[in-house]
Amino acid sequence: MIETSTQDSDERLYLDDLYVGQRFTRTHVIDEPQIKAFAREFDPQPFHQDEDAAKDTLFAGLAASGWHTAAITMRLLVDSGLPLMGGIIGAGGELAWPKPKRPGDTLQVESEVLEITPSRSRPDRGMATVRSLTHNQRKEVVQELTAKLIVPRRV
Amino acid sequence: MIETSTQDSDERLYLDDLYVGQRFTRTHVIDEPQIKAFAREFDPQPFHQDEDAAKDTLFAGLAASGWHTAAITMRLLVDSGLPLMGGIIGAGGELAWPKPKRPGDTLQVESEVLEITPSRSRPDRGMATVRSLTHNQRKEVVQELTAKLIVPRRV
Repeated sequence: MIETSTQDSDERLYLDDLYVGQRFTRTHVIDEPQIKAFAREFDPQPFHQDEDAAKDTLFAGLAASGWHTAAITMRLLVDSGLPLMGGIIGAGGELAWPKPKRPGDTLQVESEVLEITPSRSRPDRGMATVRSLTHNQRKEVVQELTAKLIVPRRV
Repeated sequence: MIETSTQDSDERLYLDDLYVGQRFTRTHVIDEPQIKAFAREFDPQPFHQDEDAAKDTLFAGLAASGWHTAAITMRLLVDSGLPLMGGIIGAGGELAWPKPKRPGDTLQVESEVLEITPSRSRPDRGMATVRSLTHNQRKEVVQELTAKLIVPRRV
């Protein structure tokens, strides 16, 4: 477990510094104004914008957009939750949203390195598969992201 | 091909109205202020915020966050690009960002129904697998999203 709050740019990690099972964590409180502001711009559906309208939907109450959860997760990772050399550059990945995200929830992100694959054609880089689980304060997983990241090698 | 600009709430689709190969399209111009505003809030990395700093990165120039592309794609889908009854509710999916998104790019989203699976336990709903390809004006795919959506059935 790495405590990331003390990370700075001098401690950024190369592919060579990663190991399978390595973990990184961060937290963030998501509130109602944030949920509605994101929804207004990117996901203007009733269950993300209006408590009353949300009651009669699948969510049974106001819930954050899954893309908002994804964006918050990214912010937490960027704020030194995953201090990769060259930044966090994703080629793609898999997403799942098993539980709704409610106003007042404290989201916590924990990332774990699953796989490291040096590039055969480019000796200066490789691919890291990193799973980032976003939990709420009830320890329920609200998002699972398994991303393929491009990471520089120490040359 | 459905021209979605004339869609309104009366034309929303049940699972029963979907067929494999059905398509929906929308477009949006992404500009530099949008790219920087999103990055400031959710993905504050140099290649999404500063032209000069971006030159020496993997992106070789200012590029939008992949999560920004995902959020814009969602907005285009919500704005009647995919007029599903009950709204667009994703359980998860797969994402890929094969090309960078540049300021001034016109993003176009085209969605296609790949698979329809009525629920065995819940006769009022089912799952639709929908692939949404986000292209730029050069017809390059900048995002591929294959999402599993929960869709009500006509009962």
